[in-house]
Amino acid sequence: MFRLRDDTTYMMPAHFGGDPYTTTYKAQQKATMLAVTFETDRAALEAYIPEELELLAPKVKVALHQLTEINWLAGAHYNLVAVTTPVRFTETKAHIDAAYPLVIWENRTAPILTGREQTGVPKIFADIEDLHVFFPHYATSLSYEGNTFLRMTFEAGDPVTGKDLEQAKRDLRSLDLIGWRYIPKVGSPGADLSQFIHFPQWMEVEKACYGTGTIQWTELSVMQNPRQHHIIKALAALPVKNVAHSVLAEGDVFLDAPHARILA
Amino acid sequence: MFRLRDDTTYMMPAHFGGDPYTTTYKAQQKATMLAVTFETDRAALEAYIPEELELLAPKVKVALHQLTEINWLAGAHYNLVAVTTPVRFTETKAHIDAAYPLVIWENRTAPILTGREQTGVPKIFADIEDLHVFFPHYATSLSYEGNTFLRMTFEAGDPVTGKDLEQAKRDLRSLDLIGWRYIPKVGSPGADLSQFIHFPQWMEVEKACYGTGTIQWTELSVMQNPRQHHIIKALAALPVKNVAHSVLAEGDVFLDAPHARILA
Amino acid sequence: MFRLRDDTTYMMPAHFGGDPYTTTYKAQQKATMLAVTFETDRAALEAYIPEELELLAPKVKVALHQLTEINWLAGAHYNLVAVTTPVRFTETKAHIDAAYPLVIWENRTAPILTGREQTGVPKIFADIEDLHVFFPHYATSLSYEGNTFLRMTFEAGDPVTGKDLEQAKRDLRSLDLIGWRYIPKVGSPGADLSQFIHFPQWMEVEKACYGTGTIQWTELSVMQNPRQHHIIKALAALPVKNVAHSVLAEGDVFLDAPHARILA
Amino acid sequence: MFRLRDDTTYMMPAHFGGDPYTTTYKAQQKATMLAVTFETDRAALEAYIPEELELLAPKVKVALHQLTEINWLAGAHYNLVAVTTPVRFTETKAHIDAAYPLVIWENRTAPILTGREQTGVPKIFADIEDLHVFFPHYATSLSYEGNTFLRMTFEAGDPVTGKDLEQAKRDLRSLDLIGWRYIPKVGSPGADLSQFIHFPQWMEVEKACYGTGTIQWTELSVMQNPRQHHIIKALAALPVKNVAHSVLAEGDVFLDAPHARILA
Repeated sequence: MFRLRDDTTYMMPAHFGGDPYTTTYKAQQKATMLAVTFETDRAALEAYIPEELELLAPKVKVALHQLTEINWLAGAHYNLVAVTTPVRFTETKAHIDAAYPLVIWENRTAPILTGREQTGVPKIFADIEDLHVFFPHYATSLSYEGNTFLRMTFEAGDPVTGKDLEQAKRDLRSLDLIGWRYIPKVGSPGADLSQFIHFPQWMEVEKACYGTGTIQWTELSVMQNPRQHHIIKALAALPVKNVAHSVLAEGDVFLDAPHARILA
Repeated sequence: MFRLRDDTTYMMPAHFGGDPYTTTYKAQQKATMLAVTFETDRAALEAYIPEELELLAPKVKVALHQLTEINWLAGAHYNLVAVTTPVRFTETKAHIDAAYPLVIWENRTAPILTGREQTGVPKIFADIEDLHVFFPHYATSLSYEGNTFLRMTFEAGDPVTGKDLEQAKRDLRSLDLIGWRYIPKVGSPGADLSQFIHFPQWMEVEKACYGTGTIQWTELSVMQNPRQHHIIKALAALPVKNVAHSVLAEGDVFLDAPHARILA
Repeated sequence: MFRLRDDTTYMMPAHFGGDPYTTTYKAQQKATMLAVTFETDRAALEAYIPEELELLAPKVKVALHQLTEINWLAGAHYNLVAVTTPVRFTETKAHIDAAYPLVIWENRTAPILTGREQTGVPKIFADIEDLHVFFPHYATSLSYEGNTFLRMTFEAGDPVTGKDLEQAKRDLRSLDLIGWRYIPKVGSPGADLSQFIHFPQWMEVEKACYGTGTIQWTELSVMQNPRQHHIIKALAALPVKNVAHSVLAEGDVFLDAPHARILA
Repeated sequence: MFRLRDDTTYMMPAHFGGDPYTTTYKAQQKATMLAVTFETDRAALEAYIPEELELLAPKVKVALHQLTEINWLAGAHYNLVAVTTPVRFTETKAHIDAAYPLVIWENRTAPILTGREQTGVPKIFADIEDLHVFFPHYATSLSYEGNTFLRMTFEAGDPVTGKDLEQAKRDLRSLDLIGWRYIPKVGSPGADLSQFIHFPQWMEVEKACYGTGTIQWTELSVMQNPRQHHIIKALAALPVKNVAHSVLAEGDVFLDAPHARILA
């Protein structure tokens, strides 16, 4: 019969075996990132922030990450679009500032499962086009079963160089997240697990370019997207008060999952 | 700020709202099922059965379900291939017999998430072709990022009618599962949740047909399928001692998630 | 060296061999058809009708065909959406009435190639969702690289029975097309082939249901759909004067390619 | 009514308009190319070379091109795998040496249509994975409706630099093709067009790396790939006598379609 091993970490199905637990392994991948950030209405945004967190600024970042050469997927690739906002979690003796992911769409299931089950990152599926690049124009579309719900475009300005690039590298470095791992009870409402988890990650930027970005939401009907229509509707309804300059960057992204920890 | 409601069941991301909890809702869908069952070596199979369960027979069923008109997905469709074996879970006063899913491949992410997080069904992603039907020949292929790992074929015999159909309806009715919901700890090996869950489901068969089925595994390298290659390898290595007659059936499938319960 | 055979019909690449030419083979497949027909402005529509043809009525039919069990594809399946209008071609001694395909989107390449190269049917690619069926609601979406450009919905009324069904079978039977096979010159403008071709095809309807259909176009930018944006724009701009009742039908579709012939 | 314009080049459907004909436009795109070349048996290979051509060497090149930032697709991307062999076409006063494409698989339909109809390049559809890169290991798989038929791998050696890079740039520059445009008759065997076409194209290589490449064919049944199984079978049967060193290169690819011309 199958027995769990003490030194091993598992995902379902566990009975085919897991991976040796190690604190030194980091997920690593190449990334092209396109980020559009805007200011919104604080009260409107706080409706989606759990009470355990404090909203640090009424800002929303929508960031495409086109990931390749992913080490934990043996060189495979996938795309994600993360919608995040800056928050603080206050522990007994200290506090942690990080990005709170309102939602992350990804076009592969494997990282959706690890993200949700290991660290409470609310990943869900969408088709996400690789960037179309008709220089200086960049664009991608997110769709669900043939129904477009988000279009991102970017018009590149001059590349960032010298001191500005050094500054950009510092500004773009942190990708730390605070996930909310929520696993429902069986046979009744409520949760069997409800935990806030700090997940350290960062980007080592090599190239960056500022420019003009746009995001355009299209609301979908229940029949077009039965499990996500309310998320799209909520995000599309956030007022866009001010769009900062947008950024396109290339570099390496690191995820330090072994140093994720539950906040309390 | 966002507050959870007591009468609501949530999935991540919870902060956009959940569904009212009800004990009466059943998932319902049309299904075309193609099942190939074979006997294998008991010891080889038991290597993948957790100690909490008893293997009732050294039999493995590989079943394609082509699902359409799915009510909880507002009429959408998807395919799954379930690899299951009959087991018993013994509780203090009674026991439960059901199918233990070794693995279930599905070609949509949404049901993978609900299955794993709500009831511990070990669903993972694969591309699964709709059945090609060149009567009396049926076939499907499962692949991962362009790499075929399972081919199922079926040559249909005569349709089942009269008393034989009534018997087939009874034989094929139960699809009850026992899932093993396993959620890993954060920052160390071991589990934050490890539960066996009984999940009632059944098929109301309308048409059935027996015939000759085949399954053919192709092992994949780590680079072809980094997260599943060991599962395919394990299943491909199970000796096929005897293939029973295979069956193709059409009907309605019902999942009674509200009556799922944790076994103890 | 490779030599062409006289009794064989070829597609590129020809040098791997072709199929024996026969006048008796018919393409056959199961079909679920959803057709929405509307009246439009005659002059607007005639802008897309070549002079060799006469527009019989200012009507446009938009029809989804969900095709399965396709004999010439060994049991495979695909979807198409045909936009057609009724025309007449007048030959020396007679005339032919048939549907003129303004465009046909298909989600598989193989039938696009045979349709274009053998019979001048102007097929191009799109992703086309299988019908979502949340009875009595039906819907599909067409998209190109993640950008939705056409949504079709249908709300089913009562099934058609008895004499009405017999009438529907007659009304829906003919699917004859007149294609315009146009192959460009190499190294200059103009055509090396420009032929009108009559292609007999029909549907043997088994079930039918009238109801309320809708079509909704979304124009796309050049960057979203560089090769088709002008087609979508042209169709979206046709005035919709009157939508007849729409129909959902199931049955078998036959294509008599060997009896296709060039009109002159 | 619609009238063709004299200064315009058209593709089906022509009646929505074409593109102004120009002799100066070049298709341009970024490319990552992985090429594996092997020697085979001359007689075996000549079975697929039409009599109008002379086989210059019994060599077959299997080359993946991963194309991005494609100007004529407004920045879109696609992949192709070309199987070519070196040939000569002798005209009255001169001869042309170029690669003869036995077949080219592409994962987008639009370039398949232009390639076939404008210049007789025998393109057909397959799913083609973007390269998985787990340095120094590279791999891709080609599949058709879930059935893998070709796997390419590459293990990179040291980058090529200095004079060797200059030599590699010259060696890899020419991508000229001779296509055989073959359009069948309607209603009988034989061709309405059968032309050999020279199509100038080239690659401006920026980086290159030699290494060890492999190709592995998997034959498919008629039901797995009804329109291509004979092509795969023919290529898989070519003896592999000697695999030269393989190459991975990056750069820009140019296609000079306006200077394509019919050979005679």
